[in-house]
Amino acid sequence: MKRTPMRACGLAGSLRKASYNRALLRAALSVAPPGLDIEIFDRLDEIPPYNADVEAAGDPEPVTALKAAIGAADALLVVTPEYNYGVPGVLKNAIDWASRPPNGSVLVGKPVALMGATPGGTGTARAQLALRQSFVFTRSPVLPGPEVLVAQAHEKFAPDGSLRDDATREHVRKLLERLVRWTERVRSG
Amino acid sequence: MKRTPMRACGLAGSLRKASYNRALLRAALSVAPPGLDIEIFDRLDEIPPYNADVEAAGDPEPVTALKAAIGAADALLVVTPEYNYGVPGVLKNAIDWASRPPNGSVLVGKPVALMGATPGGTGTARAQLALRQSFVFTRSPVLPGPEVLVAQAHEKFAPDGSLRDDATREHVRKLLERLVRWTERVRSG
Amino acid sequence: MKRTPMRACGLAGSLRKASYNRALLRAALSVAPPGLDIEIFDRLDEIPPYNADVEAAGDPEPVTALKAAIGAADALLVVTPEYNYGVPGVLKNAIDWASRPPNGSVLVGKPVALMGATPGGTGTARAQLALRQSFVFTRSPVLPGPEVLVAQAHEKFAPDGSLRDDATREHVRKLLERLVRWTERVRSG
Amino acid sequence: MKRTPMRACGLAGSLRKASYNRALLRAALSVAPPGLDIEIFDRLDEIPPYNADVEAAGDPEPVTALKAAIGAADALLVVTPEYNYGVPGVLKNAIDWASRPPNGSVLVGKPVALMGATPGGTGTARAQLALRQSFVFTRSPVLPGPEVLVAQAHEKFAPDGSLRDDATREHVRKLLERLVRWTERVRSG
Repeated sequence: MKRTPMRACGLAGSLRKASYNRALLRAALSVAPPGLDIEIFDRLDEIPPYNADVEAAGDPEPVTALKAAIGAADALLVVTPEYNYGVPGVLKNAIDWASRPPNGSVLVGKPVALMGATPGGTGTARAQLALRQSFVFTRSPVLPGPEVLVAQAHEKFAPDGSLRDDATREHVRKLLERLVRWTERVRSG
Repeated sequence: MKRTPMRACGLAGSLRKASYNRALLRAALSVAPPGLDIEIFDRLDEIPPYNADVEAAGDPEPVTALKAAIGAADALLVVTPEYNYGVPGVLKNAIDWASRPPNGSVLVGKPVALMGATPGGTGTARAQLALRQSFVFTRSPVLPGPEVLVAQAHEKFAPDGSLRDDATREHVRKLLERLVRWTERVRSG
Repeated sequence: MKRTPMRACGLAGSLRKASYNRALLRAALSVAPPGLDIEIFDRLDEIPPYNADVEAAGDPEPVTALKAAIGAADALLVVTPEYNYGVPGVLKNAIDWASRPPNGSVLVGKPVALMGATPGGTGTARAQLALRQSFVFTRSPVLPGPEVLVAQAHEKFAPDGSLRDDATREHVRKLLERLVRWTERVRSG
Repeated sequence: MKRTPMRACGLAGSLRKASYNRALLRAALSVAPPGLDIEIFDRLDEIPPYNADVEAAGDPEPVTALKAAIGAADALLVVTPEYNYGVPGVLKNAIDWASRPPNGSVLVGKPVALMGATPGGTGTARAQLALRQSFVFTRSPVLPGPEVLVAQAHEKFAPDGSLRDDATREHVRKLLERLVRWTERVRSG
């Protein structure tokens, strides 16, 4: 029996207030199909650097909150910038914590969708591939496509951060529809 | 004219006190060839999460120190664990800061050598490839080989963290010798 | 309604007769669960180098046969060696042809499982990640895990090519069971 | 003592006559700096699928010619399309052969520069990273940058295949100048 509505936990990998990627995650909320609630976990700035010694003494509260947010969600929606041809350390650090016990990891079997935006031409192609690689380790089934690689982001967002490019809005909407079906399928049974 | 001695800045991507990778970096100090000084930058736990808004207000002191340490060195020696088939967020976050202005970035043109250790079988193969990808972006010439991929690390380090495996010690020594020659070549002119 | 039995098309990326990877694919046949038929497409040596000019004149017969074999199967089982930290050109060339029209591509939406074997220690970890990257492009949902990375292959296969290592046999069996469930899920609807 | 002139062996990874990547390699000849001769090895269509059994009986003649061409050159210039988010099988197959004995491999220590062109937006970003990964295995020092990622290739080449985009021509010229200096440095000693 599927839950109604389905819930996705949204993570944006940039801490900058005016970040295109944070704006892209907010835009996802506005185009989400009926039956999908996206709840943004907006506390990556509070996640401490992963340290197994700290972990052994008990997860810091923001880490507990992160694991709870992912654990309670049916799916994960990750919006990533690309730094140095890779995943931002800030985002990877959150995934590093989330991948840890107890209970295996909240990421195991969790359906994932990816998006990303860059001012330049590749739309975080490399960072998204690196994330997919991490989600192989965590056994999280990542939606194969469509890929949302928003290039020339400065032309697609308004100064107030709203996504004004209709083709991109439609592309995000389609990704979310697919995520709903993907989640129904890969989590069933 | 080459400086005497040559200096390498050493970074280990784990914060855990008993980390094999921190131990591997300490071992590098003990086998470094004459003419190479390795200075460990041991403050990754103090580097805040990268945030362009924070950066715009001025680098936090630990970031300034990191950039200065790398900038003053002739080469960079990065010792990386592998988390979730990728670079630890903690280490990537440090690289994300180091890759930023002023003066282009202290990473541009900086010769790099990589090492890594895991209890399992692959010795951080995937994480090192991901690091190489980031160092393409930063235009940092990474030594092609030898690759130091220390697998079954628990068998190779003594309980006090010393590297007791002679073959691995010799392998690290060889890497450092090559790094010296690599640095002389790629930085010349 | 699911077909009974389910069919998987098996491809091994080595042409060498005594290849561990060909042997691993044969071993898969012997441990496949009831309800899964694996049919090996054993003609990669006949696939010509991909050339869009040749393609424009009509697919060569072995390419037609490859597309038909994949198209008729419910899933794809790819067994890959690792050459130069990547996918063997021979195997990639077959995928390059298979990814082409008509009808979109026979790879779109096709569930995939991966295996690989090496004499050394990493069991084709890098090649399998590279294959996963290609299957993102083709929108083929690759089973997240378990990963079958057969290291030290020379110890696990008998001189006659049979897989004598029980743990590996069990691992392959588990992969195939998961592939059956994965295929039922991701192809449904 | 450096040879005068320096020689680079050029490989283009597409077999299509009107390929943008073949055109890009021809363009490189026309902008090469004085002191650099680029000789195109244009027989990838004749290289058979890599097969260790065939190799054991002696390299086929086109493979011998490929190894000789690379071996005689001071550097390697690889121009790659991107197929399925990876290196074309045709090109990878040539590298697989070239990486084999005798004499270690003609690729060991061979300086390499990369270029690529696509009709779309990423300019073979993923394929070039995959090539860099292979050249880690072969211990071939790849020029860190500049990266020549020619996007929207259809706008930059004339119908006769000449490179009419001045910015791209300048970018290629700069790559080749850097390759000359890179080769002088990393091969010295």
